[in-house]
Amino acid sequence: MALNKQPYRGTRDFFPKDKRVRDYLFGIMTKTAESFGYESYDGPLLEEVELYKAKSGEELINEQIYSFTDRGERFVAIRPEMTPTLARMVSQIHRESAKPLRWFSIPNLMRYEKPQRGRVREHWQLNCDVFGCPGRLGEIEILQVAIELLENFGANPTHFEILINDRAIVDAVFKTMMNSTSEQSHRLYKIVDRAKKVSAEALQKMISEVGLTIDSEKILLNYLNLSNFEDVSHFLQNNNLNEEAFLFENFITLAKKANIERYLKYDPTIVRGLDYYTGIVFEIYDKHPENRRALCGGGAYANLLQIFDEDPLPGVGFGLGDVTLKDFLEVHKLLPNLETPSNDVYLTFQEDEGLDVTLELAKILRANQLKVITNFESLKFKKVFPAAEKKGAKFVTLIGSEELSNNQIQLKNLHTKEQHTLSLKNLDEIIKIIKA
Amino acid sequence: MALNKQPYRGTRDFFPKDKRVRDYLFGIMTKTAESFGYESYDGPLLEEVELYKAKSGEELINEQIYSFTDRGERFVAIRPEMTPTLARMVSQIHRESAKPLRWFSIPNLMRYEKPQRGRVREHWQLNCDVFGCPGRLGEIEILQVAIELLENFGANPTHFEILINDRAIVDAVFKTMMNSTSEQSHRLYKIVDRAKKVSAEALQKMISEVGLTIDSEKILLNYLNLSNFEDVSHFLQNNNLNEEAFLFENFITLAKKANIERYLKYDPTIVRGLDYYTGIVFEIYDKHPENRRALCGGGAYANLLQIFDEDPLPGVGFGLGDVTLKDFLEVHKLLPNLETPSNDVYLTFQEDEGLDVTLELAKILRANQLKVITNFESLKFKKVFPAAEKKGAKFVTLIGSEELSNNQIQLKNLHTKEQHTLSLKNLDEIIKIIKA
Repeated sequence: MALNKQPYRGTRDFFPKDKRVRDYLFGIMTKTAESFGYESYDGPLLEEVELYKAKSGEELINEQIYSFTDRGERFVAIRPEMTPTLARMVSQIHRESAKPLRWFSIPNLMRYEKPQRGRVREHWQLNCDVFGCPGRLGEIEILQVAIELLENFGANPTHFEILINDRAIVDAVFKTMMNSTSEQSHRLYKIVDRAKKVSAEALQKMISEVGLTIDSEKILLNYLNLSNFEDVSHFLQNNNLNEEAFLFENFITLAKKANIERYLKYDPTIVRGLDYYTGIVFEIYDKHPENRRALCGGGAYANLLQIFDEDPLPGVGFGLGDVTLKDFLEVHKLLPNLETPSNDVYLTFQEDEGLDVTLELAKILRANQLKVITNFESLKFKKVFPAAEKKGAKFVTLIGSEELSNNQIQLKNLHTKEQHTLSLKNLDEIIKIIKA
Repeated sequence: MALNKQPYRGTRDFFPKDKRVRDYLFGIMTKTAESFGYESYDGPLLEEVELYKAKSGEELINEQIYSFTDRGERFVAIRPEMTPTLARMVSQIHRESAKPLRWFSIPNLMRYEKPQRGRVREHWQLNCDVFGCPGRLGEIEILQVAIELLENFGANPTHFEILINDRAIVDAVFKTMMNSTSEQSHRLYKIVDRAKKVSAEALQKMISEVGLTIDSEKILLNYLNLSNFEDVSHFLQNNNLNEEAFLFENFITLAKKANIERYLKYDPTIVRGLDYYTGIVFEIYDKHPENRRALCGGGAYANLLQIFDEDPLPGVGFGLGDVTLKDFLEVHKLLPNLETPSNDVYLTFQEDEGLDVTLELAKILRANQLKVITNFESLKFKKVFPAAEKKGAKFVTLIGSEELSNNQIQLKNLHTKEQHTLSLKNLDEIIKIIKA
């Protein structure tokens, strides 16, 4: 029986035209991260499962991870996310490194998901993290990186918004204002995280099951009604959370200075689950009505290195997946057409004897940094142009019997249709025309 | 107990300085492949084990592959090589694609190996393949790509040589001249493959166990003594293998025309194991006495798509691993120093009020395609230069109280030590100096 030609469920074959799109996405990611001085890193495909358990708890391990026991009895997993690897690597070198430490990576990650729109089993994710910035400046910079990334793809405030919150505020509301126990806080985080996804009744029902006092329930509902930065400031000041109010205003002031405030929208339901965040948390939302989804999430954290018994090192980071990014760019028509490759010159000959000239010319043109495709068999004139077009060539050569006897080539520009008869002794001229 | 900070056995953490080396290697690989019009592709990390069994047989599957059963009861493996994925992908599209089809990829691959010099469990491998070239031109082109790749790293004939053979010749020697059975041929391939790695006695012992006639043994020993292209031609002609002789000479003639012959050395022991090759097979050897190893292998094959019940499509390809390449470049001192990153400007201020100016200036410089690092805290003058040097910055800014009151910055070129006092109203001038 013949083998299956399709890729493993939930993964993708990247044929050249698909790979060009991926390269385009990764190219802008790299350029943007590097424009902020972020340095690229990478880690292994496999990590010991212990690492993921330490960071994420059992839930993720049991259901979504590609884990197995290797031939040496090590229990390992294909990385489902990059942060644990990042923490492991930073824990090795942070003490002797100058701060801030600015790193980025674009790893492939695997999760055992049910494939659907925006969800695949293997995807790539840009991870940008900065460690050891003073005050709120790391949060500002990470937001700047995320915003400039999308702007570098051609996006603007009509295309996306950033829903933002501060875990220090949420913590203060739950613990200081509402006097919740740890267990109640834990449940409240889950409820707040789901608040926008359920009906008002379902939300009320979940809240009433936590066993809060009437006053605390009122505080919670007031909190959930906060919808802009001014509201938040008043709410915190009215409730004597002066330190939280001061620090949050400090963030807003800096956001204005960095000119990113126009993208930001306060949202009390953004908490990023039960994750390890301690400061600003955010999600970038597509504004397109057909794609109202988050395409990026991140935030500030204090204790990423704790699992390695290392001193706290404040960090801020975000992750942005290739699938959701591509969906975003497609729905807003921001993806360039990359159907065909791009090459400088397509070398053809119309008489078999043209092969020798072609082989020599190709070598010289390549040595001059040109992208050169050779056609190895004589090609009829009328077939030359469709073939060259498919390869995205800017120029073609034609070598017939007349050219052969005169040691010449015809060089044709496929855009301008200009055609030159050029001597093979005059290679500089050939190169000059192609490079012009 | 604190977690282990080291990467999984046989894999590597790529800290920024290591990642820069990898990016340098991949950059030259990509540039070279694209200069020949090769198009980049990629496939999934996991494939069903059936695919590897169909291509490589049971041996590889049992001992070296990272295989496991997924949560949906599929028996899958982390790719140990790219060729089966390539075959699967090409089988989907070859019928409607213009030939030749030129593809390359730089996948990460995993094998369960005992880690040692040049051998790790996770490595990256450049794969270049061309399908559907007439005659021997695909073989010539693939050799050209491999040679220009190493030349683009600065290597030349003093650094490496290419040991080459033709499976059509080996087949004719075994089957036509020696009249071997299939089973004997199979054993002979394994023996020839090991001929240079064992003593003359051990070789003789292995040969005598195959049960050849005295004449056939003589032919085999004559074959194993062939050491250059002229020998081969005479040997084939003297034994009436005229078609093989003609085709091989055709290859040599083209190799001369393509100016690659100076790297080629005939070696009768190069057969590339029991692999699927049918034409030219080759291995690129490091000439350095401390690193006498193959860093690249490849060849021509006719039936890669057979496992998918597709018509034969002739192809030629090679694989080159990142670890052996890096060893090669290091031993020949061909690797550039990539210890520090490279950035355009490092923005510092010496008075706290300089932060606002810095945030604004950074945004403008980035919008002008510059790589900009901001220092978020006021930095003492004497600390500026060592910090900027670590980040590979070409320029630094200095903003003290005098500059703040005059709305100016100091811009210093760290190479020439030239320093300019510039008005912040004159951004064009600042950008011009940095870009010069």
